[in-house]
Amino acid sequence: MSLIVQKFGGSSVANPERIKKVAERIIEYKDAGHQVITVVSAMGDSTDDLIELANQLNARPSAREMDMLLSTGEQVSISLLAMAIQAKGYPVISLTGPQAGIRTNSSHGKAKILNVQTDRLEQELANGKIIIVAGFQGISDKNEITTLGRGGSDTTAVALAAALNANVCEIYTDVDGVYTSDPRIVPKAAKLSVISYDEMLELASLGAAVLQPRAVEFAKLNNVKLHVRSSFNHNEGTIVREVEDMEKDMVVSGVACDHNVTKIALFDVPDKPGIAYQLFDALAQENINVDMIIQSHERENRNDFSFTVGRDDKARAVEIANQVADAIGARGVAYDDTVAKVSIVGAGMKTNPGVAAKMFEVLYRLNINIQMISTSEIKVSCVVDDESADRAVVALHTAFGLDQLEQ
Amino acid sequence: MSLIVQKFGGSSVANPERIKKVAERIIEYKDAGHQVITVVSAMGDSTDDLIELANQLNARPSAREMDMLLSTGEQVSISLLAMAIQAKGYPVISLTGPQAGIRTNSSHGKAKILNVQTDRLEQELANGKIIIVAGFQGISDKNEITTLGRGGSDTTAVALAAALNANVCEIYTDVDGVYTSDPRIVPKAAKLSVISYDEMLELASLGAAVLQPRAVEFAKLNNVKLHVRSSFNHNEGTIVREVEDMEKDMVVSGVACDHNVTKIALFDVPDKPGIAYQLFDALAQENINVDMIIQSHERENRNDFSFTVGRDDKARAVEIANQVADAIGARGVAYDDTVAKVSIVGAGMKTNPGVAAKMFEVLYRLNINIQMISTSEIKVSCVVDDESADRAVVALHTAFGLDQLEQ
Repeated sequence: MSLIVQKFGGSSVANPERIKKVAERIIEYKDAGHQVITVVSAMGDSTDDLIELANQLNARPSAREMDMLLSTGEQVSISLLAMAIQAKGYPVISLTGPQAGIRTNSSHGKAKILNVQTDRLEQELANGKIIIVAGFQGISDKNEITTLGRGGSDTTAVALAAALNANVCEIYTDVDGVYTSDPRIVPKAAKLSVISYDEMLELASLGAAVLQPRAVEFAKLNNVKLHVRSSFNHNEGTIVREVEDMEKDMVVSGVACDHNVTKIALFDVPDKPGIAYQLFDALAQENINVDMIIQSHERENRNDFSFTVGRDDKARAVEIANQVADAIGARGVAYDDTVAKVSIVGAGMKTNPGVAAKMFEVLYRLNINIQMISTSEIKVSCVVDDESADRAVVALHTAFGLDQLEQ
Repeated sequence: MSLIVQKFGGSSVANPERIKKVAERIIEYKDAGHQVITVVSAMGDSTDDLIELANQLNARPSAREMDMLLSTGEQVSISLLAMAIQAKGYPVISLTGPQAGIRTNSSHGKAKILNVQTDRLEQELANGKIIIVAGFQGISDKNEITTLGRGGSDTTAVALAAALNANVCEIYTDVDGVYTSDPRIVPKAAKLSVISYDEMLELASLGAAVLQPRAVEFAKLNNVKLHVRSSFNHNEGTIVREVEDMEKDMVVSGVACDHNVTKIALFDVPDKPGIAYQLFDALAQENINVDMIIQSHERENRNDFSFTVGRDDKARAVEIANQVADAIGARGVAYDDTVAKVSIVGAGMKTNPGVAAKMFEVLYRLNINIQMISTSEIKVSCVVDDESADRAVVALHTAFGLDQLEQ
């Protein structure tokens, strides 16, 4: 008997009809003799509706009260899904994050999972129950309800799969798997059958929205096999796992584009120790994730700093940048959110020199100006004008031989 | 410094505007130097909306999953109310029933409060916080979320007031207090300034919907002073407390009418020991509250049994009555939900004979047939034809001198 952990997102449980479909899918596994734990998100847009209600009462509610509010969304979907399964005559129990033993730190709104206390889960599995767990939430050691932040339901599923040593963690989405690029932008994009954690991690960070990066990281750390697949059909999706025998001829396995980018720059920053620390510590204190960081060459004892953050964090990041600029005597702050980040990802890159140069060439031939560059072992990213980004993605997909990939 | 526990119902927090009004009212008390704990229900019709969603998935969902679902309603309102208070710059924290230490038994959907663990509440009060508590819910010793059933928020408020020895427990409603009768039926109905627990208990049980009977019972048991008042103005409402010096000239203090009545009868029940036990135990097992019970005089070793239940419980009660009738060899079961219960209530009744007779006379002169009678020390109730009930209430209000009561 194998244990399967599954995760269904908000659109899969957006209304009673869809909830019934998910119930049927879960029952298929149960009938096939598996143990099943299913993690669900809040129904459709219900989280956004709650956020809008909150904003009518308080422009900046405390993160603790937001967690109290938002955690209700998943609690509604787990109970409804459990009822749908009960209606089919199967034994089932829904558990909130706290009840499922998801212990987190106290960082409300962006809590990290510390561990999973599996007693209750094991007991319910031993009782033959299908278990439905509320994604996105946990409990701190102060007995407070916490939420895990964006994509938290994926992370919940992976954490449960890791803690219970599940055979696979299935992530259901509205696409068939992980593609070489976004099919809406690149018509020739093809589904990958296997991808490594590292590649997935880079793709996920870059806006290929099928899987949240922290969930992939968590899966890599705990060696949890992920299966990204469609909730609309039974096709095999994409397996995400440690890949030892990566095909050598596939240098680049994906081209991604992230439009959720704001570029912020500080001009004429005095060149002395501790400046970078001061700026980025202030941003970290506010839980703002900084993506790319560039410090330009020093000139007349003055530097320029540029960095990127998500557009959600723009207002707060600019505010902090201004405060720090005043404090350290920089000349000014500028920001630009009409930019996007285009990236190529591939584990084969490590052993194939010249990949970055080829990317820059493609952009040059398209007459697209590169504003920032950042690289990792298996990724090259360029910040470019937002409007040019899609053109760049299509051209890169062709240039790196991904158009020929068998569908 | 006094401690005030307040309870606001669902209509008081039905939308952001009303939530702001409640926040202002709470802040008035805080500014006046009081400690405040406020219990709230789910927003407006949100509980009904959740029930409807559930019914689309399962005609008879388990009570455990319904509790999981419905408890989200109060969690939404406490967090929103806390945010509204935060917006005004006051220290506040919302607590779910479990977090507020409301420990209950495991009777899902109709849980009883066993005790209140006050550590967290005391700690937050000591920190100077306004506390907002989710009504209607608690936690069982199995770490399960429970709900207290109908009117549970009143009970939560009284339990908190009792556990923390509050100076008063204010119950905010959409009326000015407790009236001698329903002003919609009896235009001359007047507000009472004081009423005893026992009278309130009888009135509450009888459909004067301002206060739930179990909350009044809880208050009486723990000697918690209740103040029933309007959320729309600052008028003094009605104090509910132990009344020693009841005015002797006020024999009857209220006339009530309950339309939520179904009469069920078993015919030709064999006259042997254990029959009543068998029937009413079966109903109790299903958590059905039976109100009046009448056993007619034995005739040819056969009895008739009649009893009343709320209309919500009609279907299940009739089903059980049929099963028991088969099992014990009764001739048949009949039910009628076109009936209502009209009652007069007054602590002065104990020392004034002839009150019941006077009531029967009033009904007789109106040519209203009495179908069932039940009496307590301070109450006489008659089941009559539903359509005649309002006429009866108006006439009784006049006959017992309540029309003359100063408003």
